[in-house]
Amino acid sequence: LETKLPKVGTTIFSVMSQLALEHKAVNLGQGFPDFEPPAPLREAITRAMAEGKNQYAPGIGIPKLREQIAAKTERLYGHRVSPDTEVTVTSGATEALFSAIAAVVRAGEEVIVFDPCYDSYEPAIELQGATAVHIPLTLPTFAIDWQRVRDAVTPKTRMILINSPHNPSGAVLSRADLDELAAIVRDTSIVVLSDEVYEHIVFDGAEHQSVLRHEELATRSIVVSSFGKTYHCTGWKVGYAIAPKALTAEFRKVHQYLTFCTFNPAQWAFAEFLESTPEHYLELPAFYQAKRDRFRKLIAPSRLKLLDVPGGYFQLVDYSAIRDLDDINFSEWLVREGGVAAIPLSPFYESAPDTRLVRLCFAKNDATMEAAAELLCKL
Amino acid sequence: LETKLPKVGTTIFSVMSQLALEHKAVNLGQGFPDFEPPAPLREAITRAMAEGKNQYAPGIGIPKLREQIAAKTERLYGHRVSPDTEVTVTSGATEALFSAIAAVVRAGEEVIVFDPCYDSYEPAIELQGATAVHIPLTLPTFAIDWQRVRDAVTPKTRMILINSPHNPSGAVLSRADLDELAAIVRDTSIVVLSDEVYEHIVFDGAEHQSVLRHEELATRSIVVSSFGKTYHCTGWKVGYAIAPKALTAEFRKVHQYLTFCTFNPAQWAFAEFLESTPEHYLELPAFYQAKRDRFRKLIAPSRLKLLDVPGGYFQLVDYSAIRDLDDINFSEWLVREGGVAAIPLSPFYESAPDTRLVRLCFAKNDATMEAAAELLCKL
Ligand SMILES: CSCCC(=O)C(=O)O
Ligand SMILES: CSCCC(=O)C(=O)O
Repeated sequence: LETKLPKVGTTIFSVMSQLALEHKAVNLGQGFPDFEPPAPLREAITRAMAEGKNQYAPGIGIPKLREQIAAKTERLYGHRVSPDTEVTVTSGATEALFSAIAAVVRAGEEVIVFDPCYDSYEPAIELQGATAVHIPLTLPTFAIDWQRVRDAVTPKTRMILINSPHNPSGAVLSRADLDELAAIVRDTSIVVLSDEVYEHIVFDGAEHQSVLRHEELATRSIVVSSFGKTYHCTGWKVGYAIAPKALTAEFRKVHQYLTFCTFNPAQWAFAEFLESTPEHYLELPAFYQAKRDRFRKLIAPSRLKLLDVPGGYFQLVDYSAIRDLDDINFSEWLVREGGVAAIPLSPFYESAPDTRLVRLCFAKNDATMEAAAELLCKL
Repeated sequence: LETKLPKVGTTIFSVMSQLALEHKAVNLGQGFPDFEPPAPLREAITRAMAEGKNQYAPGIGIPKLREQIAAKTERLYGHRVSPDTEVTVTSGATEALFSAIAAVVRAGEEVIVFDPCYDSYEPAIELQGATAVHIPLTLPTFAIDWQRVRDAVTPKTRMILINSPHNPSGAVLSRADLDELAAIVRDTSIVVLSDEVYEHIVFDGAEHQSVLRHEELATRSIVVSSFGKTYHCTGWKVGYAIAPKALTAEFRKVHQYLTFCTFNPAQWAFAEFLESTPEHYLELPAFYQAKRDRFRKLIAPSRLKLLDVPGGYFQLVDYSAIRDLDDINFSEWLVREGGVAAIPLSPFYESAPDTRLVRLCFAKNDATMEAAAELLCKL
């Protein structure tokens, strides 16, 4: 059997989590919190199961959850969407991203992505017989060079895939960025796919610039988010996609045959919790900013150089003062010898620049951060 | 935006469930039980959540669940598989089917399917740029005409997709069928995709002929099953795929970017329950045979003609004595005027024969069956 995905191995997240396990390392690699989702959410799942919400949910998501997502979207971003025709619940953001790409992108077309980019994007594009056109973000701020985007657009460009707050860098797009993007796609048939799973994790008083805030972009975008990132339950795999009616119709055609529907009891739980406890996500920036600041302070004495973190829950560090290794070799050395699992950046590049950066996740309890920091400060 | 799936609308299951809701009809359409999964399973999910199993599971499934699946496979089918390299947990059987097709089938290739066939198969094939080659099952027993299969195989045939017990007909494949299939694929590079989600629901003392029982086929097959069907929890969306190492490697490449992983607490619950309570699935044939027989007795006085049901949880009925309508129009009439939702067969055909059959689900409580039967006997 010849592989359809010659460039793909096991995702780096699985590889590093496996190594962390084997070496009993502190796992700051794969992005997940080591604290728990709110107890009322867990209790609501138990209740939903007891109430018999154990059979198929509607494939597009239960109405109550879609209504809550729509209400929240309007409250936060001033953008009104129809829960019936513009909101779809998915089995995590990964499924939403795959469905969006499979629904829109055809063989021979091109999708512009920005490197470093999340590792599921390109395989999803390649499986459509399409090509990912990689534009590197400009270091050290991981900004988009819009002139390069303008130059990269061709008649074959079907989609531009953006991600803000950006994983792994934490960079956030500004309103000016969205205006640049809008100008580029105007009068084309390019669809914008906007991965906003860290939408609630932006720091220093900044406001998340969802494309849903941008009236013009919102008419041609599929926006993906994730309850896993927002509610500390990455293992529950509930996400959603918001898109205008025509795009949603195409999205759902694929989604219904990819997973059909998503774990039903959790849908009831999220619907209730969104309604009863909006303060949870409203307090998320402060919650994670405290973690970010604490982590930075803890590792400040180390020989790691800390990059700025405007959003997300990852800290990029420059390790060049410690070892002259490429980032894959450094990560392997770090997990084996240093006792800390990190994520190298080069797997997220088509052609990686010669940097010395790895990603550390600070969505962790104090004890975990302290244990990691102690190890990191010894390097 | 031109659609990539011009033949696809909303899946008939969603359409009929929606109509059932609107008309307050008894829903014997979409295939799901109206009784509950075992209480210990639900309790185990609650426990897993309390124990902090709320972050990403390994993408391929937690080791304990893969081990239990492997152990059960060996016990039931005498086939030894490696939990590490040959078993993958998925977000339901639908995701497993999609991942298998996306991993194996390339643009320009052909996949042989048997009509009536489950409605997710063809869109998944079409999204690969491949073609579904439809072979109708032979009425009235819905048997495979192997000569037609031999005639349909071309150098482009990449996969043959079988489904036993068969949805919607309940037909089961025999050992002789599997031998025919083995002879056809021998010395080719054709992969067999075997949808066995009703593996535990076979009647009248028959034994399910899993392709995993068939040594030769097992070396070239991807076998898909579903905990939703076995444990009465179709809304939990946990399934799995078993395939030889090389096929599993390709399968996982796609799976990891489709959903990454599956609701973690349920994985722990299924692992425990498979270990502690094998009698649950061992008793499933008797459990559903009693339901089948009860349902048949209840609707025997009606003007519906009952087809045989060797497996699965669906009863096909011939309604020609009631109305001279095609099956879509009859189903719409039945849900509106008759108060019962059924599933027409023609959506599962490329070119539907002129039959008068609809599918009724008997995975229902006595009260539901009685309510439905009362309505059906009035027609
Ligand atoms: C799906 S595993 C990867 C989790 C994640 O979002 C990350 O670590 O970047
Ligand atoms: C995924 S909805 C369809 C459920 C089912 O398997 C059926 O009704 O045939």
